[in-house]
Amino acid sequence: MNTSTSLAECVDGQRFWYDMLEQATIGALTPRGLRRLALDENDNRARCWLVDQGRTLGCEAFYDAMGNVFLRREGLDPSLPPLLIGSHLDSQPSAGSYDGTLGVLAGLAVLRALQASDLPHQRPVEVVSWTNEEGARFAPGASGSSWFAGQREAASILDTVDDDGVRFADALTTCLAQLDAHEVSYRPDPFIPYAFLELHIEQGPVLESLGVPACAVKGIQGVNWYSIAVNGQANHAGTTPEHARRDAFTGAHQLITAFREAVAEHGESVRFTIGKFALEPNATNTIPQQATFSIDLRHPSAAVLTSLDNAFQRLAAETWSGCNVELTVSSRVPPVEFDEQLVETLDASVKKYAPDAPQLVSGAFHDAIHLAHQCPTAMLFMPCRSGISHHPDEHIEREDAEVAVSAMADAVGTLLVR
Amino acid sequence: MNTSTSLAECVDGQRFWYDMLEQATIGALTPRGLRRLALDENDNRARCWLVDQGRTLGCEAFYDAMGNVFLRREGLDPSLPPLLIGSHLDSQPSAGSYDGTLGVLAGLAVLRALQASDLPHQRPVEVVSWTNEEGARFAPGASGSSWFAGQREAASILDTVDDDGVRFADALTTCLAQLDAHEVSYRPDPFIPYAFLELHIEQGPVLESLGVPACAVKGIQGVNWYSIAVNGQANHAGTTPEHARRDAFTGAHQLITAFREAVAEHGESVRFTIGKFALEPNATNTIPQQATFSIDLRHPSAAVLTSLDNAFQRLAAETWSGCNVELTVSSRVPPVEFDEQLVETLDASVKKYAPDAPQLVSGAFHDAIHLAHQCPTAMLFMPCRSGISHHPDEHIEREDAEVAVSAMADAVGTLLVR
Repeated sequence: MNTSTSLAECVDGQRFWYDMLEQATIGALTPRGLRRLALDENDNRARCWLVDQGRTLGCEAFYDAMGNVFLRREGLDPSLPPLLIGSHLDSQPSAGSYDGTLGVLAGLAVLRALQASDLPHQRPVEVVSWTNEEGARFAPGASGSSWFAGQREAASILDTVDDDGVRFADALTTCLAQLDAHEVSYRPDPFIPYAFLELHIEQGPVLESLGVPACAVKGIQGVNWYSIAVNGQANHAGTTPEHARRDAFTGAHQLITAFREAVAEHGESVRFTIGKFALEPNATNTIPQQATFSIDLRHPSAAVLTSLDNAFQRLAAETWSGCNVELTVSSRVPPVEFDEQLVETLDASVKKYAPDAPQLVSGAFHDAIHLAHQCPTAMLFMPCRSGISHHPDEHIEREDAEVAVSAMADAVGTLLVR
Repeated sequence: MNTSTSLAECVDGQRFWYDMLEQATIGALTPRGLRRLALDENDNRARCWLVDQGRTLGCEAFYDAMGNVFLRREGLDPSLPPLLIGSHLDSQPSAGSYDGTLGVLAGLAVLRALQASDLPHQRPVEVVSWTNEEGARFAPGASGSSWFAGQREAASILDTVDDDGVRFADALTTCLAQLDAHEVSYRPDPFIPYAFLELHIEQGPVLESLGVPACAVKGIQGVNWYSIAVNGQANHAGTTPEHARRDAFTGAHQLITAFREAVAEHGESVRFTIGKFALEPNATNTIPQQATFSIDLRHPSAAVLTSLDNAFQRLAAETWSGCNVELTVSSRVPPVEFDEQLVETLDASVKKYAPDAPQLVSGAFHDAIHLAHQCPTAMLFMPCRSGISHHPDEHIEREDAEVAVSAMADAVGTLLVR
């Protein structure tokens, strides 16, 4: 057997689903859902469970200085950089059992398929579970992948503290000791993979609405966060005529209308959200003296984000209903475009199962955003019901998952014979 | 002396201003401002001070069952209903010394002018200070005038409780006992006055901006209060495309734009204020599931208010960005139009001093809103600096006040010879 199609045919969908059900018992909530916070007891047990699965396939297991766990299926040429597949096993406090785990167990399913197919491959294949992607216990998240890809210093990660005052470094020591006791090999340093692939639930409604079981992901949107204050003058709502007002709500309303018009020039792909809004003094019969609000602005193109950033700054420099405006950029994360060739490879594999599959841009962050700085990287998405994640109601269809995992295996087959 | 002009000429502006300064010491704040909460020690002292001023003019003092205090200058025919002039002596917690007091002491200045002029008049003239106009200690306000005019039952007023748990009834008992001890006559019941006149600071910016020292007030705006909830669906700001959103902020924004368009059809005289606004869950990267806001809508015409009320209800029945809307009318106070002839009398008197004086509609409530249901009623306004009131910065110009009081005396002269 040496064609990519054959590797996909060797995926054991039933076994994959059984793996999904089994891991979901580690940290299960009653009556449903999952709580497996980074480096807690369940997260560490999940690491050992993953190691055990790899060992039954003859894979060696490794952990690194950040507690990332790797299962290695050796290649005919062990000196070649490995093809890396994975995601994360940690969860939000009250989560479903698919976010992250799906990508790790898709990698495991590929290892099982490689074992079953006996496909000869020069380069090694490794499955990884990255430490603390969620950032729910230790913020910010993506600790393991950002450190691995050289995007963040270890010291800044080790010093973070959870709500109970536990340092990341101390929780990590416990985790590494358990992996030691489980006789997992210590391979402290990062390396440059041949490529990184990650399957994840979409966490949005698009695939479900299209009725498509999977798709290639060509990048991750950039996001700018803004804090805006519109400063007017408080006055009596009954006695102050329109022309004598400096109404901060009216100013904010007009400014937001102008922001929306600027956004509309860039079409449907811009995501513009006002999630926070407050008035001072916030009384029914008092003209507001201040309106404050947030903007979450996302787009896959750095050029579009820059253009809108300029437009927002320009509009904020104007006066609105007699009010001046202070605009602060509280965060700027540039977009990531995944490796074009790798995206095409994934897309071709997906389309064997779903000819109408789109290529999406991820609206949320993933470990892949960091790996993209380290090696050719791309992702697969699969639908989740109503776009819900980070909640016990998170749900995927087994049939969709089997297609997604088969597409992943198909792409791996292609990459291994390239 | 028997012309109206001569009564105005008998106004002693210096004495009036001295009265204003003296009353401002009762409950004075350091470094400036006034705190004279309804039925507190200072409010009761102010009543006795007013009684003392009236007695030096030979007026008999009365109090009624609600603690309203009256100074009566007898007419040649004591059986005629008296002409009533006044306002209130109580204040907000951190107030200036003009709101309310001005209208009582303008009445006192008229009594002094009548005394000085020796003008014969058939009907009695009374000056009144109404109890608890402000509603700052016991809400709602205008207790004395609303009860006097039959707009509100005594029981519902007596049962209100202040923040310290003191009942209005008990505070009133203390007040009435002090008036008794001060040998003020008890005249328990309301009566029908010949007319009621009230001078008040504008509490808005119009007269100051016109440079006009006083004007007649032809009515009090009606006000409708609305509570609006726009119900959408919370979702991830990054992963949810525009067409799949039910963004409660966007829905509220569009609905408010439509409200504003409906308001604009009725011109500049509508006062439309959104003073409260809140989002749920109010997080930067979450599409809001609910937006709630208030509307304070005012207009002098009941027909315009009804028309806008219908428009608002119609718009709220539509769907906005996929969100449904709940609109609740939390309060509806119809406009009051003052007695046309009385307004013209005041206007004619004002124009002797300020030919360019407009006729305004009051944006705020006053005791006169209740008296208007009882007898012909009208008001005079005078400017206050920057429209500020309910604040120690409240300020009026002595020259303006003297014009306003002279205009009041002039109108009283006209009414007494009519």
